[in-house]
Amino acid sequence: MSDRLTIALDAMGGDHGPEVVVPAALDFLRASPDTALILVGQEDAIRPRLPVGILGERLSIRHASQVVAMDELPSRALRLKKDSSMRVAIDLVKSGEAQACVSAGNTGALMATARFVLKTLPNIDRPAIMTAVPSITGSTHILDLGANVDCTAEHLFQFAVMGSETVTAVAGIAAPKVGLLNIGAEEIKGNEQVKGAHELLARSSLNYIGYVEGDTIYLGGADVVVSDGFVGNVALKSSEGVAKMVRHFLSVNFRRNWLTKLSALAARPVLQRFGRFLDPRRYNGASLLGLRGIVIKSHGGADVLAFENAIHIAKKEIHCNIPERIAHRVGGQLDAKRLRATV
Amino acid sequence: MSDRLTIALDAMGGDHGPEVVVPAALDFLRASPDTALILVGQEDAIRPRLPVGILGERLSIRHASQVVAMDELPSRALRLKKDSSMRVAIDLVKSGEAQACVSAGNTGALMATARFVLKTLPNIDRPAIMTAVPSITGSTHILDLGANVDCTAEHLFQFAVMGSETVTAVAGIAAPKVGLLNIGAEEIKGNEQVKGAHELLARSSLNYIGYVEGDTIYLGGADVVVSDGFVGNVALKSSEGVAKMVRHFLSVNFRRNWLTKLSALAARPVLQRFGRFLDPRRYNGASLLGLRGIVIKSHGGADVLAFENAIHIAKKEIHCNIPERIAHRVGGQLDAKRLRATV
Repeated sequence: MSDRLTIALDAMGGDHGPEVVVPAALDFLRASPDTALILVGQEDAIRPRLPVGILGERLSIRHASQVVAMDELPSRALRLKKDSSMRVAIDLVKSGEAQACVSAGNTGALMATARFVLKTLPNIDRPAIMTAVPSITGSTHILDLGANVDCTAEHLFQFAVMGSETVTAVAGIAAPKVGLLNIGAEEIKGNEQVKGAHELLARSSLNYIGYVEGDTIYLGGADVVVSDGFVGNVALKSSEGVAKMVRHFLSVNFRRNWLTKLSALAARPVLQRFGRFLDPRRYNGASLLGLRGIVIKSHGGADVLAFENAIHIAKKEIHCNIPERIAHRVGGQLDAKRLRATV
Repeated sequence: MSDRLTIALDAMGGDHGPEVVVPAALDFLRASPDTALILVGQEDAIRPRLPVGILGERLSIRHASQVVAMDELPSRALRLKKDSSMRVAIDLVKSGEAQACVSAGNTGALMATARFVLKTLPNIDRPAIMTAVPSITGSTHILDLGANVDCTAEHLFQFAVMGSETVTAVAGIAAPKVGLLNIGAEEIKGNEQVKGAHELLARSSLNYIGYVEGDTIYLGGADVVVSDGFVGNVALKSSEGVAKMVRHFLSVNFRRNWLTKLSALAARPVLQRFGRFLDPRRYNGASLLGLRGIVIKSHGGADVLAFENAIHIAKKEIHCNIPERIAHRVGGQLDAKRLRATV
């Protein structure tokens, strides 16, 4: 085995499957000469999309006969799809043939399979899903985004530690500001889980800045924002809705007549920059944190650019040794139950 | 007592107190000749802001010696501030001297006081806070926005009925599309409360469209979106954060140099329209639904235009007889516990 990094790609996952994954892989290989990719999936769907003669040390196909449907129940995928592209890609991480995998397949099945195959790290009860979003001052990482609907205070605390450690590694921020997502009103502030997590975080060695409200995610007050998966998912999806509405409004109104079309032409440099700024593809690639291996979830509807971005995130997490870093951190200081017992 | 509508304004509430409430009242009176206003608060803070000779049938002052602070605990406000501008304004609704009141004071205290003084409607366990937000197709109403952190399925069901009934009345939509806020992933979909509410709603006579994700709020698929107060508050605040970030980005980038400034000038008609579209002041005024009286919450930081908008919402709810309509609806068909027992 060479020193080269290897990333396994679930070539069949997502709304577009190999149509997106194969060109994204080719683009990625051109940009990252030090990395090898394994395309996992149905060989006859993948091979025709590859230029002749490209297969070799840096790009290979691993045949997998099954595909997990986007609406398939995780339990069903786990039980009946043992030769799916998703499962085989994760198996490659487990066996060490790949150091990370990327899938645009269904989130529930990916999380369930990754958890079953790779297992969670010691002292981590539940993995969480984290992504970066743009903010006024750069970007904010937010977790959990839907893996855990009901969370205890300890779970939220563990998410905070995993998020902080990962942001330190990937963004180079020594002591990331960690905020706990809550609502503003006094006395009715928060539910029991949030209040409990607040106590644990206030006693931790994290750079905990206290409760934050939803707008903080985008206004740049925190580097890591922690919530349960239900709340985090709604916050992210609502924000995506506003961004889509904004793009729709500008597009419709700049196309209204020849005068507005002309003004759009004049404003093009700013509007293009704005388009890039809000472009969700730049942020595509969510991390499944807390596992004994690196798994990156791409958006199901991702296009080539977006999927390539997710592969770059996988590469960065390999370089940063994210699972090892989290394991070290939680072995060292994270024992929420013990901590709580001493409170 | 005349047939004239009367609305009581908490003149001391919010970040700006009479500085905003008094001019908003004067603007409102010019636009609404059929309505009278009562300014409730410290007379010596209100009177100097009024033009000489304006007091009379349509505008009066009701002195109240105390002020509820923006960070005051609701329980404390309720116990110790019986002569606060907030409390006296609500008392005027209770006594029938006013048909509605508007306050920019602290949400928790306003809800607690309104609930204590006015009481909830029969068959309504808890009041909820609802507001409208812009969407691609017009606007969407969302509730609860923070009054209820933990909700049962029955509570969510009651919110849906109140929201639907109110939107029918104020927006003239015969059968508003009602969506239940949830996350997308299968199997891990929703918590127990959301699943329970889903069952109740599916059996109701509402135009229930099922689960919706956060982006639906802004993409126009539903007229009413229902969630617990924690989730709804985070969804709204996150969205506000994105809107602020967008405005900030455009403002900074159009001011970058003389060329971009010139292009902003060219694009001015569209940018102004965009500014109005995203202007939160146009949507200021949240309804406290489920009470035996009309109480409108203005944003604490509202300016004159925003506060005036909240007064117009109060007027509209008087015209629509919102509490009576909800009472009629819930007396008729809303008995979630009985409904559940028959499931």
